[in-house]
Amino acid sequence: MSENWFEEISFKGQMKQGYKVSRHLHKEQSKYQTIEVLETEAVGKLLLLDGKTMVSEADEFVYHEVMAHIPYMVCPKVERVLIIGGGDGGVVREFTRHKDIKEIQLVEIDERVIEVSKQFFPECTSGLSDSRVKILPQDGIQYVKDCKANGEKFDIIIVDSTDPEDFAAGLFTQEFYGNINDILTDHGIMMNQTENPFYDEYGLKSIYQNLKDSFKNVQSFNAPMIIYPGVFWTFGFSSKSTNALDLIESKIDSMREIQKTLKWYNMDWHKGAFALSNYQRAKLGL
Amino acid sequence: MSENWFEEISFKGQMKQGYKVSRHLHKEQSKYQTIEVLETEAVGKLLLLDGKTMVSEADEFVYHEVMAHIPYMVCPKVERVLIIGGGDGGVVREFTRHKDIKEIQLVEIDERVIEVSKQFFPECTSGLSDSRVKILPQDGIQYVKDCKANGEKFDIIIVDSTDPEDFAAGLFTQEFYGNINDILTDHGIMMNQTENPFYDEYGLKSIYQNLKDSFKNVQSFNAPMIIYPGVFWTFGFSSKSTNALDLIESKIDSMREIQKTLKWYNMDWHKGAFALSNYQRAKLGL
Repeated sequence: MSENWFEEISFKGQMKQGYKVSRHLHKEQSKYQTIEVLETEAVGKLLLLDGKTMVSEADEFVYHEVMAHIPYMVCPKVERVLIIGGGDGGVVREFTRHKDIKEIQLVEIDERVIEVSKQFFPECTSGLSDSRVKILPQDGIQYVKDCKANGEKFDIIIVDSTDPEDFAAGLFTQEFYGNINDILTDHGIMMNQTENPFYDEYGLKSIYQNLKDSFKNVQSFNAPMIIYPGVFWTFGFSSKSTNALDLIESKIDSMREIQKTLKWYNMDWHKGAFALSNYQRAKLGL
Repeated sequence: MSENWFEEISFKGQMKQGYKVSRHLHKEQSKYQTIEVLETEAVGKLLLLDGKTMVSEADEFVYHEVMAHIPYMVCPKVERVLIIGGGDGGVVREFTRHKDIKEIQLVEIDERVIEVSKQFFPECTSGLSDSRVKILPQDGIQYVKDCKANGEKFDIIIVDSTDPEDFAAGLFTQEFYGNINDILTDHGIMMNQTENPFYDEYGLKSIYQNLKDSFKNVQSFNAPMIIYPGVFWTFGFSSKSTNALDLIESKIDSMREIQKTLKWYNMDWHKGAFALSNYQRAKLGL
């Protein structure tokens, strides 16, 4: 990083994306990673974990809205939600818009991410004070195993992970997906980010093979992640039976009102986002 | 540009995107601009005009397929096609797949772009030898005026332009759009690239206002342009009456065969791409 630029080099050192930095607001080494907050003109405040872009003020709503409202709109009954990772709180905030949800568990391995987000991204963390939210500072992989042992079930599970490296690598394995499947209700849905197909640094085909080996139904959609290297992002929608395109009739009227207040999500976009190009189908093996 | 990296700085100097360069293959100053070809590992060969990314081997098919097949599939009769800019030949190549098209005119102001593309991007220029193709090395703005004066009509017009700067700025004005509208057949369609909505450097709302002032029907869709700054790209679909979502029944069977050979476009994706997020609707005023 030069004095005034943050640069993220990716795709095996072949590609870079960067922002001019107006201020360095925060830097600390937590038990798990380096946590930094930069101020930029291009994307506002920017959260970095181990030097990789995670959240920006300018585009956080895209990820958070799509991860929450897509599964909510097609899951017939959503009482219990589990979010693994996502310490910035943005996905929690979006789920709290839905009054029928009874419990939202946020399992974030690094409590410092939550604290730094509260300080610098209060818009993201605004849902964490909702009485239905339980924050559990634990390892998500172990937590899912414990839930399985205890026979706990969730209607929606969001795996809000970093790239498949270091301690997040276990969030992309067949073993983990199998355990997730076991703690989903029959109509349950798992959502996860599955990287960029053009620069395909982590082998999307094998990630999707792991998903298909663990879930009966695996679908994918796209949304732009402006601050992530390559921007064009793929996401997985996995379930036992629930189809990503079958919007629940009884939720449509209420979503028509809610979506007026959203920055990205609307039901038309939801349906369009699952129509994949030949390129994505081939890369994902779908 | 450092010795081994190409960097494109955009959004008023606030954002950058770059590729490691393995070889500098070509550089010349034409009458209109600097034309360069770089070799990269990330996106293969890369064409630059005045230091801005234009075409890469790795993703050229996205732009070229969507610009040609979207209007073709909804235009009831496509006999004459006009492409303004697009000297790399990629859009021409895609139109030549359709045997019912009688004439494809390519109006490229800078002949050197065509010659350099022939040398370094032969896959793009492969359609230029088709007997239906007429290459006209002229200023597109003047050419459209001449066509209007002569009462010429086209079924599809593609404005394959660079950013709205310098000699390309005139390709985004109400006057130009008005002239285009005048030389379209009643079922005619104009397609153009309309930049990135997040970094919105050129005022998307006013570009779309110009479109709406000139055409009865204005729609927009998205496709990722991996090598362009910000990647998430918007495109305009403008017409007198033809709707971007009304696929022509009699073309569907033949496209079902053709799309098996395409790298990006398929009819499902076509329909999904026009479902806009709240964000894009607001930014474009659509």
